[in-house]
Amino acid sequence: MRDTLSFLMYDWLEVEALTRRPRYADHSRETFDSVLETSERIAREKFAPANRRADAEEPAFDGERVRVPESTRDAVAAYRESGLLAAGHDYELGGMQLPYVVDMAANTFFAMASIGLAAFAMLTYANANLLMAHGSGRQRRAFGQPLLDGRWLGTMCLSEPQAGSSLGDIRTRAVADGPGAEADPLGPRYRLTGNKMWISGGEHDLSENIVHLVLAKIPDESGKLPPGPKGISLFIVPRVMVDAEGRLTGRRNDVALAGLNHKLGYRGIPNTLLNFGEGRFPVAADGSAEAVRPGAVGYLVGAAGTGLASMFHMMNEARINVGMGAAMLGCAGYLASLDYARNRPQGRVDGSGKGADGPQVRIVEHADVRRMLLAQKAYAEGALALALLCARLVDEKRTGSSDEAHVAGCLLELLTPIAKSWPSEWCLEANSLAIQVHGGYGYTRDFPVEQYWRDNRLNMIHEGTHGIQANDLLGRKVRAGDGRGMALLLSRVAQTTARCRSHPALDAPARALSDAFAALNRAAAAAWADGDRRKALANSMPFLQAFGHSVLAWVWLDVAVAAQAALLAGAPRGESFYRGKLQAAHYFFRHELPRVHPWIAVVDACDTTSLDMQDAWF
Amino acid sequence: MRDTLSFLMYDWLEVEALTRRPRYADHSRETFDSVLETSERIAREKFAPANRRADAEEPAFDGERVRVPESTRDAVAAYRESGLLAAGHDYELGGMQLPYVVDMAANTFFAMASIGLAAFAMLTYANANLLMAHGSGRQRRAFGQPLLDGRWLGTMCLSEPQAGSSLGDIRTRAVADGPGAEADPLGPRYRLTGNKMWISGGEHDLSENIVHLVLAKIPDESGKLPPGPKGISLFIVPRVMVDAEGRLTGRRNDVALAGLNHKLGYRGIPNTLLNFGEGRFPVAADGSAEAVRPGAVGYLVGAAGTGLASMFHMMNEARINVGMGAAMLGCAGYLASLDYARNRPQGRVDGSGKGADGPQVRIVEHADVRRMLLAQKAYAEGALALALLCARLVDEKRTGSSDEAHVAGCLLELLTPIAKSWPSEWCLEANSLAIQVHGGYGYTRDFPVEQYWRDNRLNMIHEGTHGIQANDLLGRKVRAGDGRGMALLLSRVAQTTARCRSHPALDAPARALSDAFAALNRAAAAAWADGDRRKALANSMPFLQAFGHSVLAWVWLDVAVAAQAALLAGAPRGESFYRGKLQAAHYFFRHELPRVHPWIAVVDACDTTSLDMQDAWF
Repeated sequence: MRDTLSFLMYDWLEVEALTRRPRYADHSRETFDSVLETSERIAREKFAPANRRADAEEPAFDGERVRVPESTRDAVAAYRESGLLAAGHDYELGGMQLPYVVDMAANTFFAMASIGLAAFAMLTYANANLLMAHGSGRQRRAFGQPLLDGRWLGTMCLSEPQAGSSLGDIRTRAVADGPGAEADPLGPRYRLTGNKMWISGGEHDLSENIVHLVLAKIPDESGKLPPGPKGISLFIVPRVMVDAEGRLTGRRNDVALAGLNHKLGYRGIPNTLLNFGEGRFPVAADGSAEAVRPGAVGYLVGAAGTGLASMFHMMNEARINVGMGAAMLGCAGYLASLDYARNRPQGRVDGSGKGADGPQVRIVEHADVRRMLLAQKAYAEGALALALLCARLVDEKRTGSSDEAHVAGCLLELLTPIAKSWPSEWCLEANSLAIQVHGGYGYTRDFPVEQYWRDNRLNMIHEGTHGIQANDLLGRKVRAGDGRGMALLLSRVAQTTARCRSHPALDAPARALSDAFAALNRAAAAAWADGDRRKALANSMPFLQAFGHSVLAWVWLDVAVAAQAALLAGAPRGESFYRGKLQAAHYFFRHELPRVHPWIAVVDACDTTSLDMQDAWF
Repeated sequence: MRDTLSFLMYDWLEVEALTRRPRYADHSRETFDSVLETSERIAREKFAPANRRADAEEPAFDGERVRVPESTRDAVAAYRESGLLAAGHDYELGGMQLPYVVDMAANTFFAMASIGLAAFAMLTYANANLLMAHGSGRQRRAFGQPLLDGRWLGTMCLSEPQAGSSLGDIRTRAVADGPGAEADPLGPRYRLTGNKMWISGGEHDLSENIVHLVLAKIPDESGKLPPGPKGISLFIVPRVMVDAEGRLTGRRNDVALAGLNHKLGYRGIPNTLLNFGEGRFPVAADGSAEAVRPGAVGYLVGAAGTGLASMFHMMNEARINVGMGAAMLGCAGYLASLDYARNRPQGRVDGSGKGADGPQVRIVEHADVRRMLLAQKAYAEGALALALLCARLVDEKRTGSSDEAHVAGCLLELLTPIAKSWPSEWCLEANSLAIQVHGGYGYTRDFPVEQYWRDNRLNMIHEGTHGIQANDLLGRKVRAGDGRGMALLLSRVAQTTARCRSHPALDAPARALSDAFAALNRAAAAAWADGDRRKALANSMPFLQAFGHSVLAWVWLDVAVAAQAALLAGAPRGESFYRGKLQAAHYFFRHELPRVHPWIAVVDACDTTSLDMQDAWF
């Protein structure tokens, strides 16, 4: 996998070119590689061995604290101490000014070794980035810096029991914490009351503090909460109170564990229901003798009512990271089943029963096993390539010229729903194939693949469900800026197909790809032809699926061009390596891309089968 | 679900007509319904409440015995006492001479309530049927009858650690048990030594005896085992020895638990590795003073070398039952998620954020949720219909005229790989959609759907993997008897499409269906055009998938015709019921059937992508 990562980064995405930009001027391929090596080592030594145990001994609340296995504690500690949390940030913050794409590449190792444990880091990372982007100077120092330093861990508190996908319906209430609250050095101080559901890492003792970023609403003078998403504000709610300098006071804020969710997978990180301000831990805001007010203490981030916008600044990168995690679970299952297929003897090659007295062959010799491995390779490595491409676009957006940044931003907006949803769906399928390659053994806990499959099932749900991604894509992203993102993507696709002209073997795929995107473009127009939002979005899911498969076909074709070029240039990684990439690309074009047309046909016809279905008919 | 079952049985498959046949002459719709009612009640009262506990407290070996929860014991006892195990057999055996299709319909309730617990019954049933078909008179009385009476339970011992799909490679060895062994009243007596893997119900104390049916090989004079599947024989190996009259002697046979498999799902029934003849329970064959010989005592069933053929007599019905189980898991998830969707408020109908201060709607109002429910309905009810159709064909084969029986037999041969594989694949997908409808809640153990999904994952693996089914279909079944089964199926399809002429709404589906089958037929010919078995079977999986979707489309079209007819006849079950069936059929034709063409294209082109892939390229 390291070889593939390296090929995608350096040969395909030309990551080394970033070192010519001022921010990354101190870097070189060597410094990038040393980050990858450190990450790979920690993942191998600390995360991989802890993965099954974190699943088998799921987090449990003993009345005092949430217990996790000791190996989880060690793994998280090793990550916190690695400096990776701050890696992308400025030198002066203790960071390495690492490009985002290298940062993500480093994190692939942790996701592959243990997605549940890697979640602590991903959440803290997203939390810290949000604070660094939207917090006041004091908030950055008091809360952001300890997160970057790995001393504290962070959470994102969005959902509530009655408000999952529909964040506009949250009811957590934030009221100003009396006179003078406005002038708290840590930010305008509020008292929060409400319940937050699905909070990963919401309670544990793996760090001396937990920084909760909480969405809540500030009631108007009559006590009424503003309706919809526009009324949402963002607050910092530390588990343990800090003074104006960010030093721990030792006093507990009024955030209480209400329960643990018992999950199908992803058990490395506890998932919690938290009660804010229920009165379990009454807290004075500043340790003075004033009467304790009800509610958990929270500090407003940015202006009131801008909470969702700030959260979405983080959310887009979080979604790409979900996709990367799904991709790495796909890679993990692929490698595990490849190893099994190379070592398990079973049956004879032609299945006719001939040669029954001879030895059995390794199952990698069977065509259908190769198909299952090839499909996994196409899904998992394709998904990884897409995640890295998106990360590269993030770098472009951050450090490119203003034109480059604009283009990258538009493409990112369009690709994010795919980068999140496609790996979640198809690398889950890859994990199912990994089980299938193992036969009955894959259905047992003696092999790792059943856990990958369970873990991966979360990815279509969290950080915006599959349905949310579909509506985002067809409802917003393809139409945004008069279809600017779509036009840019089509032009990128055309660049790729143009490069195929020098490779005759890629001619047919190039034409198939152009056809698919043309059909997608027509279907999007057809869906919106009469401007009926409900009707258009009734088929947002087949559109998402068709779009996803088309984007991945583009990614594979572009990767194939790079592989062809490398073959011509003497195949520095050995010929087999590139042949494998080309065969996976061909698999994708022959077996996968043609699937888009039935999906597109549904969208094109403005099919109303689902819309017309009546509750009483079920 | 009872209403759907009843519609499929009586309105669609005309099961009442069977009562005109002599064997079923005492029966009527009322007697059939009373069996269904009893089954539904036991399933509701005993199986459903035990299902989660059987999963959470998986079978464990305490050194003495395999422990299962008390509720498992109660459920299995209730089934054993119900008389259902013998229901299909002759009155004189204590049976009810129930048609197979009614028998299967009765068992749908148990599969839906708890697939793991239902497995005890399904195995015992298959085991008893095999003995009744192939055992000697004495074997039927001594071993078969106690199974039919529900006093003992049975297992099937086929796989070994080194021989899963490749049964020809089993190494369990059976040698004649000394002089006089040939004349044992219970059948030629052998001593078996070997290890059997994946044995469901292999050890427990839920019944006073366990009857293992074991595949083993009899060595030639030089001690060499005969190669391949043709050398396989079948033996009865009781856990506790019996005398010539089948009375328990209390002496333990040498069958020892070597380990429990820790499974992803299907945990209601223990799955074991058994050691035969390892010397743990040395046993004399008849209680005489003769020296104890090594090996577990087994009695040969039928002639030596015919074991696999006898096993496959049972296997075909077992495969249809696997499909039925997968279908019922699909139904269970569908009903659970429908219930959730009807009660969970979330979001607004058009998703535009308008009406944010009004109440949320129930999620069944969202088009994409309806799509997910409709897809589940199409998968699960379609799979149930196919299972019942196959069961009806079994009745036709058993009690129809010789022509009818021959036709039914040919169709069954062809349809069995689909009846087994299609529900296993698509009702697993249905269960994934059931999780998705629940959002985050579906990912927790507070709701039943995650267990259905885990349970269902086994069905693509056991009783012949997905790949085995694919090779069976394209390698044998479509070619058998010069394509006789395929010709019969095409003629049935033509009958269905002809009946659509009176229903204009079914005209387009009928044409699409004819096209799909014509394309399938061409693809099968193309695959075998140059007679290269390895090349043909390299695409057996896409062929299986295309064939499966086409068969299901046929089933749905045929069901739709029945629904249309019932609507015209005054809609006795209420109009909504039939509208739902029609909408599910339309969903299948608009969203699912078109998927067959990319699969068919791969077969048609004799694609060699998987075959050409080299181990070194992965």
